[in-house]
Amino acid sequence: MSRESVLINDVGPRDGLQNQSKILTVAERVALIKALADAGMRYIETGAFVSPRAVPAMAGSDDVATTLGQLPGVTLSALIPNARGYELARAAGVNTVAMVLYASEGMAQRNVKMSMAEAEAATCDILARASAEGVEVIATVAVAYECPFDGQTDPAVARDIAARFLEQGASRIVFADTIGAANPQQVRQLLDPLVAEVGAERLGAHFHDTRAMGVANVFAAIESGLRYFDASIAGLGGCPFAPGATGNVATEDVVMMLEQMGFDTGIDLDALIAASDLAEELTGSAPGGRSKRWLKPWLQKQAAS
Amino acid sequence: MSRESVLINDVGPRDGLQNQSKILTVAERVALIKALADAGMRYIETGAFVSPRAVPAMAGSDDVATTLGQLPGVTLSALIPNARGYELARAAGVNTVAMVLYASEGMAQRNVKMSMAEAEAATCDILARASAEGVEVIATVAVAYECPFDGQTDPAVARDIAARFLEQGASRIVFADTIGAANPQQVRQLLDPLVAEVGAERLGAHFHDTRAMGVANVFAAIESGLRYFDASIAGLGGCPFAPGATGNVATEDVVMMLEQMGFDTGIDLDALIAASDLAEELTGSAPGGRSKRWLKPWLQKQAAS
Repeated sequence: MSRESVLINDVGPRDGLQNQSKILTVAERVALIKALADAGMRYIETGAFVSPRAVPAMAGSDDVATTLGQLPGVTLSALIPNARGYELARAAGVNTVAMVLYASEGMAQRNVKMSMAEAEAATCDILARASAEGVEVIATVAVAYECPFDGQTDPAVARDIAARFLEQGASRIVFADTIGAANPQQVRQLLDPLVAEVGAERLGAHFHDTRAMGVANVFAAIESGLRYFDASIAGLGGCPFAPGATGNVATEDVVMMLEQMGFDTGIDLDALIAASDLAEELTGSAPGGRSKRWLKPWLQKQAAS
Repeated sequence: MSRESVLINDVGPRDGLQNQSKILTVAERVALIKALADAGMRYIETGAFVSPRAVPAMAGSDDVATTLGQLPGVTLSALIPNARGYELARAAGVNTVAMVLYASEGMAQRNVKMSMAEAEAATCDILARASAEGVEVIATVAVAYECPFDGQTDPAVARDIAARFLEQGASRIVFADTIGAANPQQVRQLLDPLVAEVGAERLGAHFHDTRAMGVANVFAAIESGLRYFDASIAGLGGCPFAPGATGNVATEDVVMMLEQMGFDTGIDLDALIAASDLAEELTGSAPGGRSKRWLKPWLQKQAAS
């Protein structure tokens, strides 16, 4: 019986590293990305074409992209905040760009000093250009559940932004629980109506483990029909606006659960643990996937038998 | 709108403490139980009437029970392995007993040196006696998903034991993921057919967080319709047969998720965190609920505003 596939996009090299205190070299970032690719990761967010003054950890994302080139079987993406970022990413050979949409006025103002509508229009312009140039666009709806400035997000607002963007040609819309506030009931309430309307094929989800519900939220989204998830190796990450926030949900926790539920992630667990160990070693501060304590001895036992 | 109720049974003072290295005094155990009751916990497993040589941490469970007496609004239970334990518990004034059923031959042999059928028959005898004496019986089906000796458990076997025991008059059957091996898909596959058959009112679930899926499994059981969960304050616990096992799913993680999903647990989060801090302080080795890092500053902020 062939197993149903679930795609994982490792955002550790971008969303993860930009929230760790230690700044890695280009060579270290490339090594981490290659370790993830070696483990069978099909999507990896490699960097961000943003101001190096604002986000020092992402300086040299062009070097990361050109050093990597293309990796067979892996979609390498980079975050771009605006047209200038798009051009820089394209110049570095990036064929898949990640963009952010805002489901709250407070977060749009704080992050890009625009209204939600202005930010959406600007992003639409880039999407049109990308479509014309054959560049794949993954758009993330930030604060899809709750905003640290505006409180609870109206799920209809988040769904409407997503539906509009899919119509305009985005390859995929990822709903992000930016501050790790979502509970699994909310996940289903947000996603179920949209999946009924547009299907799950072009949707994805992004969770943080801040309130210990990251893995539960992934399962809730699976129940809603989603088969594409952001996750961060070794749980790298956090959120500058969320005090006490732990990082993104750890890739190893998500992959282990999915594999044990019978899904095919295409990922080799031994190689994934090696990538997680590398992330911990390079950053010195990765929270580490919680399943690793169990998974490591188990894999060693399997190998020995 | 009145909120739907979910019952939490804190097994920290029994299942938790018997797996921590430090042995607490009777006074310390009573203090922890009272802190849980003060937080609004409706069910608490206070101890076990087992051999003090085999389980030194549970010695003095009779003193714990007599010191506590009855606490208003709280069902205090104690684990009993056999008729002798039943008599000791009754002599100490215990009105609710917890018993264990086995869903694998390997675990039955290892734990009570009986076959599954022998263990079930012995437990049935006690159940009949308890029913006659008006004593409430909560029965746990151990290794309901996977056994460390026999591998995967046939869900039909676990369901059949449960159905037979409910028929015989048990108040409640709790399906236990004794070694923390279950994934949320399995939880639904085990529970959905039984809920369809006998309803969810007398069912419960017990999870460990060994593979980082404890909270996700609670959500899966909620989706199946269950409204009664074991959990352990500060994640106290573990399993002697599961290497690298972390403890039971932490009460604070479960309660926070349930409350955020709109359920009424009857539990005050501030007082629960105080009980969790006490558990950490007394044992020196409690893993601590993962949500606490976020929950503590959040509660402080709420109190200040």
